[in-house]
This record gives sequence, structure tokens and C-alpha cells, in this order.
Amino acid sequence: MLTTRLTDRFGLSVPVALAPMDTFADGRLAATVTRAGGLGVIGAGYRDAEWLDAQFAAAADAPVGVGFIGWRLAEQPHLLDVALAHSPAVVIVSFGDPAPSAAPIRAAGVPLMVQLNDLDEARRAIDLGAQGIIAQGGEAGGHGKGVRSTFTLVPEVADLVADRAPETLLLASGGIADGRGLAAALALGADGALVGSRLWATREAPVAPAARQRVLAARSDDTVRTGVFDIVRGFHWPAGYTGRTLRNDFVRRWLGREDILRAELDEAQRDYQSAVTAADFDVAAIHIGEDVGLIDDIPGTAEVLAAMSRDAATILHRLSGSAN
Amino acid sequence: MLTTRLTDRFGLSVPVALAPMDTFADGRLAATVTRAGGLGVIGAGYRDAEWLDAQFAAAADAPVGVGFIGWRLAEQPHLLDVALAHSPAVVIVSFGDPAPSAAPIRAAGVPLMVQLNDLDEARRAIDLGAQGIIAQGGEAGGHGKGVRSTFTLVPEVADLVADRAPETLLLASGGIADGRGLAAALALGADGALVGSRLWATREAPVAPAARQRVLAARSDDTVRTGVFDIVRGFHWPAGYTGRTLRNDFVRRWLGREDILRAELDEAQRDYQSAVTAADFDVAAIHIGEDVGLIDDIPGTAEVLAAMSRDAATILHRLSGSAN
Ligand SMILES: Cc1cc2nc3c(=O)[nH]c(=O)nc-3n(C[C@H](O)[C@H](O)[C@H](O)COP(=O)(O)O)c2cc1C
Ligand SMILES: Cc1cc2nc3c(=O)[nH]c(=O)nc-3n(C[C@H](O)[C@H](O)[C@H](O)COP(=O)(O)O)c2cc1C
Repeated sequence: MLTTRLTDRFGLSVPVALAPMDTFADGRLAATVTRAGGLGVIGAGYRDAEWLDAQFAAAADAPVGVGFIGWRLAEQPHLLDVALAHSPAVVIVSFGDPAPSAAPIRAAGVPLMVQLNDLDEARRAIDLGAQGIIAQGGEAGGHGKGVRSTFTLVPEVADLVADRAPETLLLASGGIADGRGLAAALALGADGALVGSRLWATREAPVAPAARQRVLAARSDDTVRTGVFDIVRGFHWPAGYTGRTLRNDFVRRWLGREDILRAELDEAQRDYQSAVTAADFDVAAIHIGEDVGLIDDIPGTAEVLAAMSRDAATILHRLSGSAN
Repeated sequence: MLTTRLTDRFGLSVPVALAPMDTFADGRLAATVTRAGGLGVIGAGYRDAEWLDAQFAAAADAPVGVGFIGWRLAEQPHLLDVALAHSPAVVIVSFGDPAPSAAPIRAAGVPLMVQLNDLDEARRAIDLGAQGIIAQGGEAGGHGKGVRSTFTLVPEVADLVADRAPETLLLASGGIADGRGLAAALALGADGALVGSRLWATREAPVAPAARQRVLAARSDDTVRTGVFDIVRGFHWPAGYTGRTLRNDFVRRWLGREDILRAELDEAQRDYQSAVTAADFDVAAIHIGEDVGLIDDIPGTAEVLAAMSRDAATILHRLSGSAN
């Protein structure tokens, strides 16, 4: 068992939180992570109140958190109240200004964590009094600015935290898929990891079988950061954000030709919708991290967390033994 | 003291090699790194035979290696013989096909290490029988493909090595600037680290004082990967390569406007040359890694290596103690 400030404060047995992956981090997956000793988090980024209530219901007695996408939450701020009514274990705000949410979250006595991509955002989150900071590197699956990488962002944010608000928890996110990654994240100064892709590829995650097969076959060189899927899906991500996805025919066709995609959007959207319906992943997006090459099985969630924790401990013991 | 396969095979007391930074990793800096217990490497990327002989002379009795840029070495292959005549501790080939160099290096009984950026290159280097592989993430200062990051590339290459040629040494490069980074590199599966930026910022490195000041003031968010300095310097890097540098006025002016820079090259080159002569780093390039924000002093080389090693050991002991 690995003990860190994250496990202490949240009563976990593994210093890992489930990333609030929209459409994948549902109530069931979140509850499974919590029951396995991690911190389960529901991904509420693109959803509505009804869905959110249903996910908390599905999680039942397992304490789980909830994660919002900042700029989306600004468009439907009442979702925060819906979530807070369920006394979530944590609220994560990613990708957008967390400031408007801070007061209600604090008033509800719920810890706030902010997922961020650069130092300015880190400084603002600290000044806002966030209980936790999640430093997301560009390796991460899904969205982000992709301007920094986990390896250098985490220690630099750790220094900032040590300097300004040492009690703030620090999680690393982006690229952490096994015990090596977890041990490295702790070595870099994090109190734990926010894990998306590796927990996406589990038995309990609501993932299309054909998507799973692609992820199992992919190597890390096969991912790319792009906005083409946001264009075709009609998602208005703020400037500077891209999503890391598997490179497929759709990406090969439109990457670098975004203007033409925008000009031919109606047709492209019809084709894209058909592909999604048909689970045709030559066209439909699979958001996944640069750690996809480290993923080559679909175990149960509990098994993933146990292996990460056990392997990290083994690595740390071995390396400690070679250091005199 | 940290013991790894790298320290064993090369008789080091610190599992760190100096990156072959052209114009900065000279004979003096390389010898200083070797005397401090690391593996000193002369950066011969853009230089000639006379310079190379002089650097080995400057290193005197300290065993040092030498690093070439593959595509440049192909243009002047005799430099390899010049280097081999000095019985270097290692030859590193980065950025280009190492195959033509492998036979003469092997015949000379010198270990070959290949610095690379993706899995295909790693597979080829293993098949070539390289004694060491240096997995360079896009965080790195200076050139590279910038397509992968240290955090995921290192473990994935470690798996490849374990599978195909387990005796091959694996070094991590890109973003390693302190004991945290060194401990993380080892946790990810590396036998040691190739360190550039942190050793650039030392008393012994031949760096212009004004450049040092900029590096001390910079945060990691201030670097960018670009080819604009290669265009203006007339360096013909193969497609796909960029260099990580500090963002300055020159970058702000030309990034994304490379075509215009090429069209106005004569004038731009005159201005650039004047800026280099005047040590005007608003215009002249400073190649440095994404770890620049972790660098805030100019210690001696020996001090840097001792601190990296000591801090890594402390971190590993502490984390090991929290893992039961
Ligand atoms: C399929 C997928 C969907 C994601 N959706 C969201 C989201 O809706 N909101 C969010 O904050 N982060 C989202 N992320 C990013 C995660 O929060 C996290 O940064 C990332 O998964 C960490 O990197 P990893 O995938 O390498 O573990 C998503 C990630 C993936 C893989
Ligand atoms: C100023 C500078 C010059 C570099 N020049 C070279 C070079 O000539 N040949 C080479 O193989 N690598 C070169 N590199 C890259 C290094 O080999 C190495 O990958 C990098 O320094 C590691 O990342 P770090 O700077 O974060 O330590 C250079 C790096 C820097 C910072």
C-alpha cells in the first residue's frame, strides 16, 4: 500500500483518482474505482441534470466525486447545484475559469480540485484556495492545451505549491498507465495521479468493443492532438484547446485542412454521425492518451488499481535499495 | 550513491551523461562531468576535425564520449574516424540513421548509443545492436522530432528493450533537471539520464552571460519548438525536426510566417548575425528545454550532479518508506 497526502485526506488505499472522462466515467465506473480504494469521479462535462442524478444513483453508497468542464459549466451553472446536492467527494473543474464555482463548492463543504495546463492557471487555482491541483500534461487523453508535459509541469507546479500554499494537494495527469508512471509521478512531487486512458480500457468502462480493439492494437506513436473532431461534433472549445485521439482516416483527411472541414461541415457532420452510429472508428473519434502503447489488456478496474499500486511500491523499494 | 546498469557498465558514481550539446558540451565541460562521476560527452554535431581534436585534448586524461548529429555526420563521415582515434568512452548518434556508423564504432570496440524520438527508431537501434538507447522526449532542449514525451516514451521503449534485447542500456532525455527528474526517469524504467539544459546552466559551460540571465529568468511556459532559427542559420534539418528554444522577439516575429522568412532570408540573416555578435538574445537563439523553469542558479557541474544524485536517493528512500 502506498500512503500519500492524497490517500490520507480522502481515505484511499491507492493514490489514484479516476479522470472525469465524459461519457466514460459514469456512476458505475466511478463507484468501482472508489470500491477498489481509489477516488471515483463522474465525468459530467457534456451532460445534463437528469444524467448526473442517474450517475450518482448508480454509484449508490460509494462516495464519488464529479468533474466539470469549466467553459461548459459556465453555460449551464445550475449543474453545479445538482452535483452538490449529492455531496460529492470532490468537485474537479477542468478547462475554464474555476472562480465562479469556488464559493458554492466551499459553502457546501466540498473539496475543489482544478485541472490545469500551465503555470498561470496553477497560480490562479492556488490563489482561489483550491484544495487540490491537477497538473495535466499534453500526454493526456482527451482535451487540454497540450502546451506542457507531465514530466516538467508536475515538479514546477510542486515548487509553486510549496512556495504559496504547501497544504494544497497535487495530482499528476497525462500518461500515467502503470506502476512505473505512478512511481514517477510521486517522484516528481505529486501526491497521486489522475488516470484516464488506463481506466477507460477496463471491463467496467462503457466503451464500444470496436474502440477497445483499436486501443489494444495502437502504439503511443499513433495518437495526435487535434481539433478536427470538435469541429465536426460542433463543440466550441475555446482557442488553444485540442483533444488527444487515435489517428484515424478522419484525422488523416482533415488535419491541417480545418478550414475546408468548416466549409463542408453539413456533409461532414452527416457522415460523422453515421460513423458514430455504426461504431466505425475509421471516422469516429477515440480520445485516448499518449500512454495508449502501455495498454494491452482489458482487466477489471480493481485489478488495474492493485497492479499500479503494487508495481509502484516494488519499483520504489528496488530503487531505494540501489541508493546508498 | 545511485547504482544502476549505467553506472556499473561505465564505472560512474552518478547515472547521468552530459548531452552532446553542440558548442556547449566542449572538452572542458565533458571532462568536468566525467570527473564529477558522470559520463562526459563532447557535442560534435556541427564541428570539424580540428575542433574535435582540440576538445579531446582539453579533456586530457578524463575519459569522455562524443555525440554526433546523424544527418550531419553523413555529410562528413570522416569525423567519426577522427573521434574514434581518441578512443571515446561512447559514441552517441542522434537525429539520423546510425546504421552507417555502427560497423566502424563496433570495430573500434567503442559502445554506440542512439538518441531517438519514437518507437520505430528504437526498434531499428535495437536491431542495429546499439549498446544504449536514449529515449528523447519533446521536452528536451535543442533539436528532436518533438512527437513524444519523456513520460510515456521511456516506459514504452523499456518494454521494447525488455522484449528484444534486455541487455541494452536505456537512458531518458528531455526534462531531467533535478533529483526528482532523475528518480522519475529511473522509476519509468531508465538506467540513467542524458542531461542537457541543467548542465548548460553551470559555471563551466561556455555560455554567454546574457543568455544565462535569460535562462534564470525564464519559466518553462516560455519555451517553444520551432524551426525558425534553423531557417535563418541556414541549417538544413530534415523534415519533422524542430528545436526547443526560449520564445523571444525573433520567434514571435517569424513563428507561423516561415515562408516570408525564407523569402526575406538575406536581410534576416544579416540581422541575425549582428544579433549573435552583439549577444542580443531578443533575436539570437537560446536552445533550452522545457525544464528551464526548474533552473534558477548557476552552480558548478559537480554540485549539480551531486545534488541530483543525493536528492533522487532521498526521494526514493522516502517514497519507499511510505510503501508497504
Ligand atoms: C476518453 C477521455 C475523455 C475525457 N474527457 C474529459 C472530460 O470530459 N473532462 C475532463 O476534465 N477531462 C477529460 N479527459 C482528460 C482527463 O481528465 C485526464 O486529463 C486524462 O485522462 C489523463 O491522461 P491519461 O488519459 O493519459 O490518463 C478525458 C480523457 C479521456 C481519455
Ligand atoms: C543547447 C542545446 C544544444 C543541443 N545540441 C545538441 C546536439 O548538437 N546534438 C544532440 O544530439 N543533441 C543536442 N541537444 C539535445 C540533447 O542531446 C538532449 O536531448 C537534451 O538536452 C535533453 O533535454 P534537457 O535539455 O531537458 O536535459 C541539445 C540540447 C541543448 C539544450
